[in-house]
Amino acid sequence: MRYIADLREGEQVQEHYLCVNKQVLKTRAGKTYYSLKLQDKTGVVDAKIWDLNDGINDFNEHEYIKIDALVITFQNSIQLNIRRLRKSSEGEYDPREYIPVSNRDIGEMYEELLVYVHAIENKYLSTLVKKFFIEDRDFISIFKSHTAAKTMHHSYLGGLLEHTLCVLNMCEFLANQYTMINKDILYTAALFHDVGKMNELSAFPIIEYTDPGQLLGHIVITIEWISDEIRQIVGFPDALGNMVKHCILAHHGELEYGSPKKPQTIEALALHFADNCDAKLRTFTDLLEGSEVEGNWLGFQRIFDSNVRRTKF
Amino acid sequence: MRYIADLREGEQVQEHYLCVNKQVLKTRAGKTYYSLKLQDKTGVVDAKIWDLNDGINDFNEHEYIKIDALVITFQNSIQLNIRRLRKSSEGEYDPREYIPVSNRDIGEMYEELLVYVHAIENKYLSTLVKKFFIEDRDFISIFKSHTAAKTMHHSYLGGLLEHTLCVLNMCEFLANQYTMINKDILYTAALFHDVGKMNELSAFPIIEYTDPGQLLGHIVITIEWISDEIRQIVGFPDALGNMVKHCILAHHGELEYGSPKKPQTIEALALHFADNCDAKLRTFTDLLEGSEVEGNWLGFQRIFDSNVRRTKF
Amino acid sequence: MRYIADLREGEQVQEHYLCVNKQVLKTRAGKTYYSLKLQDKTGVVDAKIWDLNDGINDFNEHEYIKIDALVITFQNSIQLNIRRLRKSSEGEYDPREYIPVSNRDIGEMYEELLVYVHAIENKYLSTLVKKFFIEDRDFISIFKSHTAAKTMHHSYLGGLLEHTLCVLNMCEFLANQYTMINKDILYTAALFHDVGKMNELSAFPIIEYTDPGQLLGHIVITIEWISDEIRQIVGFPDALGNMVKHCILAHHGELEYGSPKKPQTIEALALHFADNCDAKLRTFTDLLEGSEVEGNWLGFQRIFDSNVRRTKF
Amino acid sequence: MRYIADLREGEQVQEHYLCVNKQVLKTRAGKTYYSLKLQDKTGVVDAKIWDLNDGINDFNEHEYIKIDALVITFQNSIQLNIRRLRKSSEGEYDPREYIPVSNRDIGEMYEELLVYVHAIENKYLSTLVKKFFIEDRDFISIFKSHTAAKTMHHSYLGGLLEHTLCVLNMCEFLANQYTMINKDILYTAALFHDVGKMNELSAFPIIEYTDPGQLLGHIVITIEWISDEIRQIVGFPDALGNMVKHCILAHHGELEYGSPKKPQTIEALALHFADNCDAKLRTFTDLLEGSEVEGNWLGFQRIFDSNVRRTKF
Amino acid sequence: MRYIADLREGEQVQEHYLCVNKQVLKTRAGKTYYSLKLQDKTGVVDAKIWDLNDGINDFNEHEYIKIDALVITFQNSIQLNIRRLRKSSEGEYDPREYIPVSNRDIGEMYEELLVYVHAIENKYLSTLVKKFFIEDRDFISIFKSHTAAKTMHHSYLGGLLEHTLCVLNMCEFLANQYTMINKDILYTAALFHDVGKMNELSAFPIIEYTDPGQLLGHIVITIEWISDEIRQIVGFPDALGNMVKHCILAHHGELEYGSPKKPQTIEALALHFADNCDAKLRTFTDLLEGSEVEGNWLGFQRIFDSNVRRTKF
Amino acid sequence: MRYIADLREGEQVQEHYLCVNKQVLKTRAGKTYYSLKLQDKTGVVDAKIWDLNDGINDFNEHEYIKIDALVITFQNSIQLNIRRLRKSSEGEYDPREYIPVSNRDIGEMYEELLVYVHAIENKYLSTLVKKFFIEDRDFISIFKSHTAAKTMHHSYLGGLLEHTLCVLNMCEFLANQYTMINKDILYTAALFHDVGKMNELSAFPIIEYTDPGQLLGHIVITIEWISDEIRQIVGFPDALGNMVKHCILAHHGELEYGSPKKPQTIEALALHFADNCDAKLRTFTDLLEGSEVEGNWLGFQRIFDSNVRRTKF
Repeated sequence: MRYIADLREGEQVQEHYLCVNKQVLKTRAGKTYYSLKLQDKTGVVDAKIWDLNDGINDFNEHEYIKIDALVITFQNSIQLNIRRLRKSSEGEYDPREYIPVSNRDIGEMYEELLVYVHAIENKYLSTLVKKFFIEDRDFISIFKSHTAAKTMHHSYLGGLLEHTLCVLNMCEFLANQYTMINKDILYTAALFHDVGKMNELSAFPIIEYTDPGQLLGHIVITIEWISDEIRQIVGFPDALGNMVKHCILAHHGELEYGSPKKPQTIEALALHFADNCDAKLRTFTDLLEGSEVEGNWLGFQRIFDSNVRRTKF
Repeated sequence: MRYIADLREGEQVQEHYLCVNKQVLKTRAGKTYYSLKLQDKTGVVDAKIWDLNDGINDFNEHEYIKIDALVITFQNSIQLNIRRLRKSSEGEYDPREYIPVSNRDIGEMYEELLVYVHAIENKYLSTLVKKFFIEDRDFISIFKSHTAAKTMHHSYLGGLLEHTLCVLNMCEFLANQYTMINKDILYTAALFHDVGKMNELSAFPIIEYTDPGQLLGHIVITIEWISDEIRQIVGFPDALGNMVKHCILAHHGELEYGSPKKPQTIEALALHFADNCDAKLRTFTDLLEGSEVEGNWLGFQRIFDSNVRRTKF
Repeated sequence: MRYIADLREGEQVQEHYLCVNKQVLKTRAGKTYYSLKLQDKTGVVDAKIWDLNDGINDFNEHEYIKIDALVITFQNSIQLNIRRLRKSSEGEYDPREYIPVSNRDIGEMYEELLVYVHAIENKYLSTLVKKFFIEDRDFISIFKSHTAAKTMHHSYLGGLLEHTLCVLNMCEFLANQYTMINKDILYTAALFHDVGKMNELSAFPIIEYTDPGQLLGHIVITIEWISDEIRQIVGFPDALGNMVKHCILAHHGELEYGSPKKPQTIEALALHFADNCDAKLRTFTDLLEGSEVEGNWLGFQRIFDSNVRRTKF
Repeated sequence: MRYIADLREGEQVQEHYLCVNKQVLKTRAGKTYYSLKLQDKTGVVDAKIWDLNDGINDFNEHEYIKIDALVITFQNSIQLNIRRLRKSSEGEYDPREYIPVSNRDIGEMYEELLVYVHAIENKYLSTLVKKFFIEDRDFISIFKSHTAAKTMHHSYLGGLLEHTLCVLNMCEFLANQYTMINKDILYTAALFHDVGKMNELSAFPIIEYTDPGQLLGHIVITIEWISDEIRQIVGFPDALGNMVKHCILAHHGELEYGSPKKPQTIEALALHFADNCDAKLRTFTDLLEGSEVEGNWLGFQRIFDSNVRRTKF
Repeated sequence: MRYIADLREGEQVQEHYLCVNKQVLKTRAGKTYYSLKLQDKTGVVDAKIWDLNDGINDFNEHEYIKIDALVITFQNSIQLNIRRLRKSSEGEYDPREYIPVSNRDIGEMYEELLVYVHAIENKYLSTLVKKFFIEDRDFISIFKSHTAAKTMHHSYLGGLLEHTLCVLNMCEFLANQYTMINKDILYTAALFHDVGKMNELSAFPIIEYTDPGQLLGHIVITIEWISDEIRQIVGFPDALGNMVKHCILAHHGELEYGSPKKPQTIEALALHFADNCDAKLRTFTDLLEGSEVEGNWLGFQRIFDSNVRRTKF
Repeated sequence: MRYIADLREGEQVQEHYLCVNKQVLKTRAGKTYYSLKLQDKTGVVDAKIWDLNDGINDFNEHEYIKIDALVITFQNSIQLNIRRLRKSSEGEYDPREYIPVSNRDIGEMYEELLVYVHAIENKYLSTLVKKFFIEDRDFISIFKSHTAAKTMHHSYLGGLLEHTLCVLNMCEFLANQYTMINKDILYTAALFHDVGKMNELSAFPIIEYTDPGQLLGHIVITIEWISDEIRQIVGFPDALGNMVKHCILAHHGELEYGSPKKPQTIEALALHFADNCDAKLRTFTDLLEGSEVEGNWLGFQRIFDSNVRRTKF
């Protein structure tokens, strides 16, 4: 594959890219042209279609397209002049070339996650989690491939699964250290805590906040989902359901971070710590691995409200 | 009725009171006795049962009881020495003697509220609100008699109805002034905005936060209720449902006040203003009417973060 | 009139515009030239005067000028090359073409406002408001045409009047709903609450914070004005004056928003709600009407500390 | 004089005290009696008048009274049983025995203050300050004896004068160190900065916030006073007046401390530092001198948001 | 042993207690007496010595004393009238009866901690930690028995050791999960992070903030200690030392919690999480185990800024 | 010298400049070139070395270099095309031409500072300050030439000395006004309060935060230095040392400004005021002197969180 990062002025390129933005504009002279942004996992590039001739087939934003274009430079940046264009067919391209994917094997991670699913002994909670994580193929399929965030930690295919698994690992550690913790409640809440992101963030290839994501947020979406299922499990104790829901509602830890309740049970507190700890240490790791800054200091990082340093001495 | 505020040392009293607290204690000498708090709408009084003889029937906290007692003074306060006690039967007492009730007629207020129910033109929203406010007798019955708060504004029988009606009045005013507002969405959201309090606060006679109230809060409880009904209305547009839910989620106005989302639509903003305005001006009115302080200044009021003054000159 | 938004490359334009910025600069070669910004109600455009010949008459920033210029493009923007220029004479241009004006008729609005002036029964307050709103022609003239803000809600000719009227409407609604409110005090305070803006913001055509506006602010300016008049009304009760002044001082609601006192009376609280409610809902309306963003989400809005959505479903 | 701190059980006392609180109560038996609080500079004591006979003359709260009483103990505290009582006549008592007075000589301090008055060279400012500090006998008389605070630093007769003088001393130091400072403006603003307290706090013997004090605050009261005088000085430049007023408005330094403007000029900043520095270091000094705690640590002090330590090693 | 919680009116008690407070007072009649507070692990009791006869030997606050006293009741509380008193000799009492001790065996915990000491591979860090945790007998002895807090989590003998060990356990977990973490730095910082508490809090039996504790705080005290040792280790890299010190300085996570720096390295962030997580979950555990409240809700807890609930359903 | 601010297009320049940034880049064609930033006290200019021929000698960032270059313009800015380049030798350039220097004579200022050193009477404190300010030549030399800040007040050669002296002046004033202040402690703390900046900020010519500066901060660095010296002075009372250290730790006044302790002694409070007052008034002075804005208003200043005005009327 011809990656965007490797394009050079003057070459002619035929390749599939993801069209992440399409604008229909007019020149001063009144002629219509298209201005596009094309993406693969190595970067984004501007492209123009000046001549809307027969070689330019119909296509939409957020679709994969096959282009035939000349690489030029404009104001010190690479730009593509597209001469021919058609939609790509499924199978012609590998989505993994277009956004980052978890380094870990998704199947293996899901196996590890199922260990926690099966570890839940309370019959009501066991029924609840199995309805989603074992019986619901659509849910499982999306859960496995979703991202955990728009721009931060775990913003890649499989990120939601990877984050959920890391949170579960820390929950297990905490439940072993602080034995007042009810493992069944904590594991259940950890499994579900971010599933609402499957509806809050649009799926690959374009990660954007959805309408329900902005209006309700992933916490409330999650509550709606499990609330509905709980209602259908005969005999599910109200208090038990409320304790799981409370953990999910409170997992951001503070009202100002969007949790409508502060943690009031030890499981809610433990889930908040596990979630926060994984999010922050993963982000820090990504920073350390991804930064191209030379020297030890990587500059001010808003999420840490601080400059950040490599560990070198 | 012999009101608590009128009891005098030395008299013998036979009356029904509400037992709001019951503790089983032991004297230093090891003898069991009961320490109670009894309430009517004029106040609260301590009572003791030193001698657990046959005249003392079984009873529980939060029940109405008929007592026969001697009024004494202990450390400058009135106290009752109970000799005989039994549970009251329904009909022997009038609950309105035991907690405050709205000054306005509940039936009339409900009629006014129904005007707003019928004013909603969108068929999906109309179906939704009628399911609750017209078809569901249990819901209506509790809604009419519930309180809107534990200790603040509208903390009396019918308070929830009165507050909801006042909020609707202001919503109508705002929708007429600012015509971008969608009346159907605003009225629907206003009707539902505090119904979760019916589960957040225990019903009369004892207004306390319930378990779901503390773990989930009335905002999330409300969402669960209407979410469930919306799911059952065929063809209800997702976006429409989300906009109503958003108004409810955001009606506290700020994350730190327990709303998991800030107002993002003009209806959500209008509902927040109407709710806040009624809550604060009603509380101020109650303060002005209820304060026994002489002089113009009523002292520091936490809710207003300020000293507060009567309007006199 | 030839509007700025409609100018096209290559045309020759003769028109009156408002000069909102004038800089005297030198080319590298040492020759003096002028760089101007011209404005009408449709936009702003850069203009240059490269040749300071006899055709270029004297003029100042913030004046109306008649120009004869060629329209060119520079770095993808329209620019004017001015060949001839003179000051416009009054009458040659209509100020309403240069800044936005209230959609509502100013005379009608003032009539509506006078209803509130006449509704005030207390003789001292009635005397006070009439001194300004009925007897003082200069005050009335400026009040009618002033803006209520620099960049936000009601930032147009007549905006101060329109905002004041809307606040009075809501004050009337609130006074009817919450009958502890003293209408005379509330109307008086509402009428005056923002009049200091007539000195805080410079008048049309250039809305800028003035020196006293920055050093004292409109709240203190207002206090100085009415304090002076009250002193001259024989028998005006001190406490009554203080209560009106307090409403004005406290109408921003919080110390951190520039009110030196928090609302301590019910009228002060009501005025704060009415002012805040109108400011925010008007701004939201302007956003919805004015935004050119396609789609439902209008982007992050600082005043609401949130993304904002149209009401569509 | 027989000080309250020295009263002993069993003695009969005839003395003048200040009555700071008077309540008319009824015994359980229905008989009227008075409960008083009496004060001198050494403390406060409860007193009762059980028998309202002919020996008890008319008197009011906040008056000096001559009593004849028996000292008893009740619940481990001293209490007075008053048998005879009359109002004290002026001259029978020395007010300085009843509240604390500045340690420094008030006349001398005023002389020092006048040096600053005379140091102001600008003719308008000079005229302004002399109108108050030299020509207005009533103003001078109250200014000399007023307190600077209700319970904090300088809460004694002459405290306002002493605080103003200390602030002026520091202003002089700062103006010499930072020569961009305009001495005339700074001295004028410093002289006036707290004079509004003469109306914000009631005069000796009872220091309470007054009605205008609570509704307007001393900052706004001060502005009203000098605004009125400035208006009467022919030719007084607006900008000069605004700069003095700005220093006064901004001298609390932050909006949340009740200044409607933050310091925007170097004089406003300097005045804020001088005021804050004197208030805090004087309070700290009073704490160190007045605390009866043994050991080095004086306990948590709200004004410093910290525990506080003596300087000993 | 006769525990304070079991004392009954009328009995004569001879027992050793810890005197935590001793005041020398005078009766109204002028006679000197002592008022004491005595403590064992079951509670605190007031005691009086009215008669300072020969049976009352010399003693000081914070010493163990043997008393012979009569148990009486005064205002509904138990009180001791002491007739005879002498200092206890070491060996006559078991300190563990007087304050809480860790449930876990101190020797075993220290063994576990040494595993981490020996796991540090970097020779400079290894030298540094061994100087304290292996070679310095005084340090080890105090470290083993010190408390980790005054009133919160781990406020018992061995609490500092137990907290440090739990923090190390979590550090190990985190270092295994997030492999960018440098284990040597993290373990070193975790071992030292709270050792300054040995000087910040006075040792058993009276846990109070010391003078250096209040003036400098345990973070700065720790830095002084290790800074001094590092200076004496030849070749210790500056940057390495700074990274360890930084973790310690930043372990409170936020400036407002007393850390002069925010976490800037991944080890600093990990240490902060481990410390915070153990402190909070331990406190929650203590609450759940220690609360005597019946029912599920334990009331508002300041540390969690929330009401707190048992996990029951 | 040919200053950067005076360079004109077309001229050939041979001059010494300070190279503050050096990047090695590649053209699209793959050819290596250098992009530099050169500085003198009048400004900064971009420079390119397109042709790495024999005339270009070795050099590093942060060195003085002698260049031979052509002045061109690129995108409206001046740029240098360097043809020949060599390192400057010491003596060829005067460092004072490259960064700002204090206006005051450094030797004189140091003499004034020594007066405070000699005024300290306590023998331990006297020994301590003399070890640094009289005996340690290296310390004195750096102290005299260091800057007090990166970009704010006193950011010039001698700035640390000048700031320290101004703080001492105010400390002297305060100690004379508030006589509870211990002059010896205050002077000692003032002398040392910012010396850690000598290690926090790199020395001239490049003022950057150093590694220890970012990891530890100047407050902790200062503590390490004096802690080490105090340990070596026989008999130095612990409490005395702690009180000096406390003043230094607390001199930022608030935890959120990086002080790990709030001021708890009167000397700590006085030092905080003196430091803050000098920093702010000096910055304000610099603004007034340095601003090139015409008119009275200098625009929003982040340090004052406000717009700022010249004192003109």
